[in-house]
Amino acid sequence: MSQSRLDLFVDRMVSQRACLDHAAQVIAQIQGPVFELGLGNGRTYHHMCHIMPGRDIYVFERAIASHPDSTPPDDKVLLGDVFDTLPQAQARFGDTAVLIHADLGGHNRKKNDIFAQKVSPAIEPLLAVGGLMVSSDKMYFDGLVEQPLPDGAVPGRCFIYRRED
Amino acid sequence: MSQSRLDLFVDRMVSQRACLDHAAQVIAQIQGPVFELGLGNGRTYHHMCHIMPGRDIYVFERAIASHPDSTPPDDKVLLGDVFDTLPQAQARFGDTAVLIHADLGGHNRKKNDIFAQKVSPAIEPLLAVGGLMVSSDKMYFDGLVEQPLPDGAVPGRCFIYRRED
Repeated sequence: MSQSRLDLFVDRMVSQRACLDHAAQVIAQIQGPVFELGLGNGRTYHHMCHIMPGRDIYVFERAIASHPDSTPPDDKVLLGDVFDTLPQAQARFGDTAVLIHADLGGHNRKKNDIFAQKVSPAIEPLLAVGGLMVSSDKMYFDGLVEQPLPDGAVPGRCFIYRRED
Repeated sequence: MSQSRLDLFVDRMVSQRACLDHAAQVIAQIQGPVFELGLGNGRTYHHMCHIMPGRDIYVFERAIASHPDSTPPDDKVLLGDVFDTLPQAQARFGDTAVLIHADLGGHNRKKNDIFAQKVSPAIEPLLAVGGLMVSSDKMYFDGLVEQPLPDGAVPGRCFIYRRED
């Protein structure tokens, strides 16, 4: 039987959690900040804070509209268009991010894919050696290596990339 | 370890799907319409259409703002406040609904609970004998009987009620 939009959504959320839980373990011993691209209502940010206590988690968002429980402190927000804030982050942090997460989250797959192609080159230089990028969409990186998915993640619903060197 | 908002959300969505899939099987042999209270972006409505093809599914919503793939036809929408449209549905359909689903979906549990108490008496008379009510929140019915949850549903994240006679 084909999948409903609810089926796809459940798979995406379950996969996102499985990949983030896995990534948090993999990068546990590496120093550096974590970046969340897009906050939305903040559920995933809440989860990232939950599984990586003590880690500096910076949120990239146009406008904060999250649940009060899941709102980052002002000094951990990079407010604006990612095509401005990602280069700003590169100037500020260099290639030190140990985990970058993005759920582009749009309903239109074609638009998501075009955006993924555009934004990938702005994300890639931020990642530390050994750092991971977790995305709900296929990304377009030159130097990052796609990783196998952890148990519980559904192929095609989540992607993990790693900077090897 | 305590649960993040993402954990709670995943549990709610997985439970909702498990309960709806189960309910669709239970009511398969009973004639009558299905009611979806609240449309949102239409993912759950899309799933209900998917698992109950050919069934008349009426949507109760203040204002339609769903994904284009998941928008009900005009003649299957009861537009307005549920405290107006539920009594209208009672006048129009009597007690013939075989499945009623509601995800009140608010972030504030206390407000959800107050709303559940207020709306339960308006839902109860719509249900056919043998019909099921599936809800993401605990409801307050006089005559409906709470049912065991199917495999895959998480206790407390979804509720099923049945009109026995």
